[in-house]
Amino acid sequence: MFMNIQRLINEIVPDEPDPAAANALQEGLGGQFGEMRTMMQYLFQSFNFRGAAAKPYRDLLYGIGTEEISHVELIATTIARLTDGSPRYNGSPEAPLDEAAAGGATPLSTALSAGNIHHFLVGGQGALPVDAVGNPWSGSYVYNSGNLVLDLLYNLMLESTGRLQKCRIYEMSSNKTLRSTVAYLIVRDQAHENAYAKALETLGVDWGRTLPIPKTAAERFPEVKTLLDQGLAEKQYTFSLDNLSEAGKIFQGSAPAAMNGATLRTEQSPEGYPMEIAVERPEEFAPGLDPALLELVQQTAEMEVAQASDPTD
Amino acid sequence: MFMNIQRLINEIVPDEPDPAAANALQEGLGGQFGEMRTMMQYLFQSFNFRGAAAKPYRDLLYGIGTEEISHVELIATTIARLTDGSPRYNGSPEAPLDEAAAGGATPLSTALSAGNIHHFLVGGQGALPVDAVGNPWSGSYVYNSGNLVLDLLYNLMLESTGRLQKCRIYEMSSNKTLRSTVAYLIVRDQAHENAYAKALETLGVDWGRTLPIPKTAAERFPEVKTLLDQGLAEKQYTFSLDNLSEAGKIFQGSAPAAMNGATLRTEQSPEGYPMEIAVERPEEFAPGLDPALLELVQQTAEMEVAQASDPTD
Amino acid sequence: MFMNIQRLINEIVPDEPDPAAANALQEGLGGQFGEMRTMMQYLFQSFNFRGAAAKPYRDLLYGIGTEEISHVELIATTIARLTDGSPRYNGSPEAPLDEAAAGGATPLSTALSAGNIHHFLVGGQGALPVDAVGNPWSGSYVYNSGNLVLDLLYNLMLESTGRLQKCRIYEMSSNKTLRSTVAYLIVRDQAHENAYAKALETLGVDWGRTLPIPKTAAERFPEVKTLLDQGLAEKQYTFSLDNLSEAGKIFQGSAPAAMNGATLRTEQSPEGYPMEIAVERPEEFAPGLDPALLELVQQTAEMEVAQASDPTD
Amino acid sequence: MFMNIQRLINEIVPDEPDPAAANALQEGLGGQFGEMRTMMQYLFQSFNFRGAAAKPYRDLLYGIGTEEISHVELIATTIARLTDGSPRYNGSPEAPLDEAAAGGATPLSTALSAGNIHHFLVGGQGALPVDAVGNPWSGSYVYNSGNLVLDLLYNLMLESTGRLQKCRIYEMSSNKTLRSTVAYLIVRDQAHENAYAKALETLGVDWGRTLPIPKTAAERFPEVKTLLDQGLAEKQYTFSLDNLSEAGKIFQGSAPAAMNGATLRTEQSPEGYPMEIAVERPEEFAPGLDPALLELVQQTAEMEVAQASDPTD
Amino acid sequence: MFMNIQRLINEIVPDEPDPAAANALQEGLGGQFGEMRTMMQYLFQSFNFRGAAAKPYRDLLYGIGTEEISHVELIATTIARLTDGSPRYNGSPEAPLDEAAAGGATPLSTALSAGNIHHFLVGGQGALPVDAVGNPWSGSYVYNSGNLVLDLLYNLMLESTGRLQKCRIYEMSSNKTLRSTVAYLIVRDQAHENAYAKALETLGVDWGRTLPIPKTAAERFPEVKTLLDQGLAEKQYTFSLDNLSEAGKIFQGSAPAAMNGATLRTEQSPEGYPMEIAVERPEEFAPGLDPALLELVQQTAEMEVAQASDPTD
Amino acid sequence: MFMNIQRLINEIVPDEPDPAAANALQEGLGGQFGEMRTMMQYLFQSFNFRGAAAKPYRDLLYGIGTEEISHVELIATTIARLTDGSPRYNGSPEAPLDEAAAGGATPLSTALSAGNIHHFLVGGQGALPVDAVGNPWSGSYVYNSGNLVLDLLYNLMLESTGRLQKCRIYEMSSNKTLRSTVAYLIVRDQAHENAYAKALETLGVDWGRTLPIPKTAAERFPEVKTLLDQGLAEKQYTFSLDNLSEAGKIFQGSAPAAMNGATLRTEQSPEGYPMEIAVERPEEFAPGLDPALLELVQQTAEMEVAQASDPTD
Repeated sequence: MFMNIQRLINEIVPDEPDPAAANALQEGLGGQFGEMRTMMQYLFQSFNFRGAAAKPYRDLLYGIGTEEISHVELIATTIARLTDGSPRYNGSPEAPLDEAAAGGATPLSTALSAGNIHHFLVGGQGALPVDAVGNPWSGSYVYNSGNLVLDLLYNLMLESTGRLQKCRIYEMSSNKTLRSTVAYLIVRDQAHENAYAKALETLGVDWGRTLPIPKTAAERFPEVKTLLDQGLAEKQYTFSLDNLSEAGKIFQGSAPAAMNGATLRTEQSPEGYPMEIAVERPEEFAPGLDPALLELVQQTAEMEVAQASDPTD
Repeated sequence: MFMNIQRLINEIVPDEPDPAAANALQEGLGGQFGEMRTMMQYLFQSFNFRGAAAKPYRDLLYGIGTEEISHVELIATTIARLTDGSPRYNGSPEAPLDEAAAGGATPLSTALSAGNIHHFLVGGQGALPVDAVGNPWSGSYVYNSGNLVLDLLYNLMLESTGRLQKCRIYEMSSNKTLRSTVAYLIVRDQAHENAYAKALETLGVDWGRTLPIPKTAAERFPEVKTLLDQGLAEKQYTFSLDNLSEAGKIFQGSAPAAMNGATLRTEQSPEGYPMEIAVERPEEFAPGLDPALLELVQQTAEMEVAQASDPTD
Repeated sequence: MFMNIQRLINEIVPDEPDPAAANALQEGLGGQFGEMRTMMQYLFQSFNFRGAAAKPYRDLLYGIGTEEISHVELIATTIARLTDGSPRYNGSPEAPLDEAAAGGATPLSTALSAGNIHHFLVGGQGALPVDAVGNPWSGSYVYNSGNLVLDLLYNLMLESTGRLQKCRIYEMSSNKTLRSTVAYLIVRDQAHENAYAKALETLGVDWGRTLPIPKTAAERFPEVKTLLDQGLAEKQYTFSLDNLSEAGKIFQGSAPAAMNGATLRTEQSPEGYPMEIAVERPEEFAPGLDPALLELVQQTAEMEVAQASDPTD
Repeated sequence: MFMNIQRLINEIVPDEPDPAAANALQEGLGGQFGEMRTMMQYLFQSFNFRGAAAKPYRDLLYGIGTEEISHVELIATTIARLTDGSPRYNGSPEAPLDEAAAGGATPLSTALSAGNIHHFLVGGQGALPVDAVGNPWSGSYVYNSGNLVLDLLYNLMLESTGRLQKCRIYEMSSNKTLRSTVAYLIVRDQAHENAYAKALETLGVDWGRTLPIPKTAAERFPEVKTLLDQGLAEKQYTFSLDNLSEAGKIFQGSAPAAMNGATLRTEQSPEGYPMEIAVERPEEFAPGLDPALLELVQQTAEMEVAQASDPTD
Repeated sequence: MFMNIQRLINEIVPDEPDPAAANALQEGLGGQFGEMRTMMQYLFQSFNFRGAAAKPYRDLLYGIGTEEISHVELIATTIARLTDGSPRYNGSPEAPLDEAAAGGATPLSTALSAGNIHHFLVGGQGALPVDAVGNPWSGSYVYNSGNLVLDLLYNLMLESTGRLQKCRIYEMSSNKTLRSTVAYLIVRDQAHENAYAKALETLGVDWGRTLPIPKTAAERFPEVKTLLDQGLAEKQYTFSLDNLSEAGKIFQGSAPAAMNGATLRTEQSPEGYPMEIAVERPEEFAPGLDPALLELVQQTAEMEVAQASDPTD
Repeated sequence: MFMNIQRLINEIVPDEPDPAAANALQEGLGGQFGEMRTMMQYLFQSFNFRGAAAKPYRDLLYGIGTEEISHVELIATTIARLTDGSPRYNGSPEAPLDEAAAGGATPLSTALSAGNIHHFLVGGQGALPVDAVGNPWSGSYVYNSGNLVLDLLYNLMLESTGRLQKCRIYEMSSNKTLRSTVAYLIVRDQAHENAYAKALETLGVDWGRTLPIPKTAAERFPEVKTLLDQGLAEKQYTFSLDNLSEAGKIFQGSAPAAMNGATLRTEQSPEGYPMEIAVERPEEFAPGLDPALLELVQQTAEMEVAQASDPTD
């Protein structure tokens, strides 16, 4: 069973909107090695888990799977920020939606030339469950063989590939909004790679100097280095409200060899950052509620409240 | 941000394994109108939400979206139960895996004739992110137009269709494991239909005698009737750990017309039921850990524990 | 622009319902070489047509494309007939929908073992836009290279493949409902193969003894032989309401060589057969309208009629 | 059964070719909420319809489904116009196809940078059955639950979403060819939304001020306003050649509340506009017929005509 | 560049036709972890390879990729054998194709109840590029990150998963045709797992007792044990006609730890087994050539030969 | 069974990298009418072939299918060349990967605006198994009806369409790398069209002046003309190492009519051109091996060699 908290797992740094950067980031959300996939893969692996004697491994999967839901939330919100603020015709809701302004462009003409046109046409300048070339996310991505060792090996490779792709995205744009989220996810992917590598260590593998795979030189990315220096790659969260998670039995002791011997630590959850609701976009007919409806809602709510006994008993 | 609790949102009643019933239930998990879709649709709608003035609607979507994660967990676990216990050759792990027993069947021959062969071939007798004819779940299912009224209207239709399909599944098999989960989800779909209908009521729609759509006569299904009598269709959960949800502003007062005037109530979350880890299946090579690995793990864990200071600081 | 007539292009012979036969027939509707594909392919080819000097070829495509819409209607209706009459629990709408009858089966249990479960679960015992293994129809099937000769060559191959598959379906079941529609479509596919072969003849190809491809020996299927003897394979319809079609300039003279020298004829349209609306299926919650709604509709209609001046001016 | 007329349902205003605009318009043709989908959805719903007592609803679906075929024709033709006239190397068919001209571009180099490269590579500068990011149309889009009320509710949402997307497309480009077709379809989507809203009204729903959903302020688009002023949004066509349609029993009386009380009217069909065949494109090897073939065709036709008795008896 | 030899890489043991077994085997051909995927993945990895200093790794990929083409050939031929011999109505080509025989079945009625109906309907009783639930093979399966270590890690996991699935298929049927091919591929997958494990060893990983993953106890399958005893799992083929392959630099020395210290050996290629062409199937209209065409071909061939100088110079 | 030779089937002419041209070329690799499809289609047709009397046709399919593997290799390598050399930040591996250079671009920023972003994000600047709009290659493309004449007719159309698309690609860019491979494939497609046309001639078809379809005027492309003048379109290779191919019985005598009477010739294989391994790309983290790993590998190799007896016995 799952609960939510109205906070984001990391802070999103403001910068200019950039639909092309938003599109690149879609790979990290709805791509084959993106957060929707890690989330679904680990949740299915923990729902279908076999063998009570191996519960610490189940709990490791369950905890990381839970974290990935928050990653989906973070990256989706980041994409929405990057598409938002697109060519709103002018500041006034009364501005014409049908004519070109001085600049010669119609309100949504940017959609024709940058990123994924669906951001403006199918969604109202928000994130989509697709990858960076517009392929919808597919259930066929989920790997869950039923054999624990194979599943762990796949997960290690999956986290490494996710990190590789995010390092490439980092190099595609210097947009600060994009980079703040990408850097955070690079380091958390590293932490998850540590977790699966450690789990395989408990099963007999000695990784030698092979890890991390790939050697992404991510310490050359300043935002990443800052987080690494804070030890965020050696920390695991259980997100376990009832503290029944036994994942800490695996994620403990020294980090896999190439990690320079740092000590792994397990915590319940990070504190999170405030969450904001985006502004309306009249040119997308994404009003939430128009004034007439808002008034109606207000009346209804008051009327109901007057009648209601205790709505949150 | 999301947290987990090691409990199932509803109890699964034990019965015989039934791969064909498991396959029908896949529609409710990975089908176009199944729980993976409602979960993803509501989460995307809340992540991309616009208009702070409409926060109660955002919180309604956020809360139901969170509940759907637990529904995915419940239905996946139910499917795993229904495929589990399939023709294990005999009780002993030493039994031959290559010969036919007295009954003439090889250990996994049932996979050739009932349900979805992937349950036994790709997974280790567990749930898959596919529908009842084996199509993988697709991101193209997610609807999030960015216009609040349209999104609510779609969600109402989505819940109604989900309920319609689950009523049909109920009629396909008398297996108690299947029916316990299906009946629960029928009633919760009804509750969510109530939520979206009520939200549209606040925007001016009077549903008259039209609701519920469809009129499924679900009270003729005993397990459903029991839950309806407990008022489970008029209750909404926020799953909001910080109690910041304003969804109760919408989901209150009298239920939409055809609901016989029952009063809507909002709570934080149900209590849940214990969760169990399934047994291993040697014929699927889904051992979790073999004895040699178990021993190794034990040694490693002890060694690490001896060294570790405080693994859950 | 298109108009409809409430008649079927051919008669459907009644027989027992047969979900497995219905599923085989889905290939002819939503398969890669089925009627949805021929319909869409010819319509796209005529919408995108280039070269006014070649108008007779455009009109040939336009006419056959129009006929295919009626074929989609015919085969969809046939599939609906074959799934209909499935295990309705008993004759009375008051019968329990939740218990097994004397026969031991629940109302929709047949869905678990025969044909495509989606016929009963996603649809209400009706046709689906999918093929015989449940793959949804795809726009990627449509071939329209823009080069007329290539398009004609593809169309010839397409009709031949469609006919080949229908001959195989004919051999899969002796159900009369299935065979009446399949036999009709075999002969019309033959007529269309004649049309494209003739069109290529006008461009210089001499087919010799190669045609028809394949030599399906369809005269060994009695229902097919009857229609062949009526000359239905040498007749082309324009379905052209304004009689502006010039397709007859191509489809005339002797049939392509292997066709035994029969003379090709062009007509406007067949007369058609009466169309019936299927009965309701309570076990699918496919009521159309329940008694309460029917009464409401009746009242509304009368009230509106009383007020309305001339609704069909 | 269906017939065709060689006329377009609306006029296409000439303007410059614009491949990027053509690509945006593909969403309205082959997208999840485009005309191919409405066409197929309504046709399947009418083919699979249950309940003779509800025939007016069947006829409503059948009539709108027929209109959508003409919409597919209109929008496909518009896309073909917008891609046509693309960088033909120079006016003469003898111009070199392999070298860059003074402008530095090869004949089809525009395909690399604007819109969908498949318009030039897979098709011969014509419409494709895909959406605006190149995903092929899928049969999984078609919704036909078998429950009439649910189907109507979905259709209302579908028309509203289609209209929302077309309003966004309108804002993406000021190209007159694009806008003439988009404006027409916005108003017809409004008419269809009216039809389904009215049908639900007959079943008890009072829409209050909720409709139209979304409130697109389309009267701010001049081309749309002109058509609205002509009452095109309150008119329904049966496209029923035998005038057996009973759709007028539903689509009559006052329009749903927010429509300002205009009176709904039902007619057989619009008059239509002349249809033209596009010119050939040598750089696409889309000649229709080369001179040698044209000569051959001419000879064949004359020869056949001399022999033929009456080709259109 | 590639050459062919008209020999199969392993012998196919004859047994009864079995469409359900054929369908299970499709997973090994066109499934996500089947031979089409390994073939394409390794070929793409070697075509896109970077780093001349790492040529032995390129050659390893190139050689195994080449072997997989022969595996595709072997498994496709096996599937064709298993579907062949399906209910040919009787021995004579003159037998009626439209009536039920004494047994009550029409010629292709078996297609309705066992395995994949497309084997009989779309193909002429031959293999298809799909998996065991009918999903077509997809290019999205191919993994080629561009990072050598990641690619090797993925390949190790891929071979292990392929072997796991084949062990499960082995347990689904005792058909000797199926088992002869499955047993061979289990052992070759083991050899390829050895190759990738060894390649990772050269990069620093010590697998300890972890390998093989999974521990499939395949020595309990007699056909597998026979091949293991022959050392087939420790042998690698280069399939390198010009003997330029340097793969032997990696695949040498002792096998990865858990492999009991056997010594790895590299050879050019196996000898292969004779290849036979299947018989014709009149009920599938898969005649190859009918008698009239055969006669024509014979005449043409003789005529041409008489004129030809040297056709194979 | 198949063997490889470390040579390319044709030479790739060097030119500037051009990601947009690379993307266009993807259609020829992973598109519906590209080389992966011809390769798989002909291989499946020969694996599933029926009728020993028709062996020359089987061998024709087998030989062309083998050639297509080399075409996949050629076109994939060409695409890798065209994406390679993309914006490497500067010449030194020590260059910063996180900052914009003087030109203002980050190392991989080009990925956002040209071609397929997956070339840089999912792959390491290499070819992908997708088409020019990013759709993954699909097994549903493969046509293998089981009827020989239909299969040949389809293959003729397939080669013609492939050639048509490549002529269009030729017109999209003057890049010499792209044109060298495209020109070669245009001529080989022509040769294969000749082969299938000839095969159909042996079955009775007289193509008259219809062939080649389309008349692409390819002699106006200089690189194509050079190869045509060398007779490359009238030559067929068997790629048959054991020289058991009987394809020469079909591909002999005069070329189909419109081919100007040239004489068809059959050879074993071309000589091929040297193959090179691409350089590493640090900005893609596609190092092959980093210095530390290279040293390790070197040590291991030496150690193993010292112990090994005969690694290539």
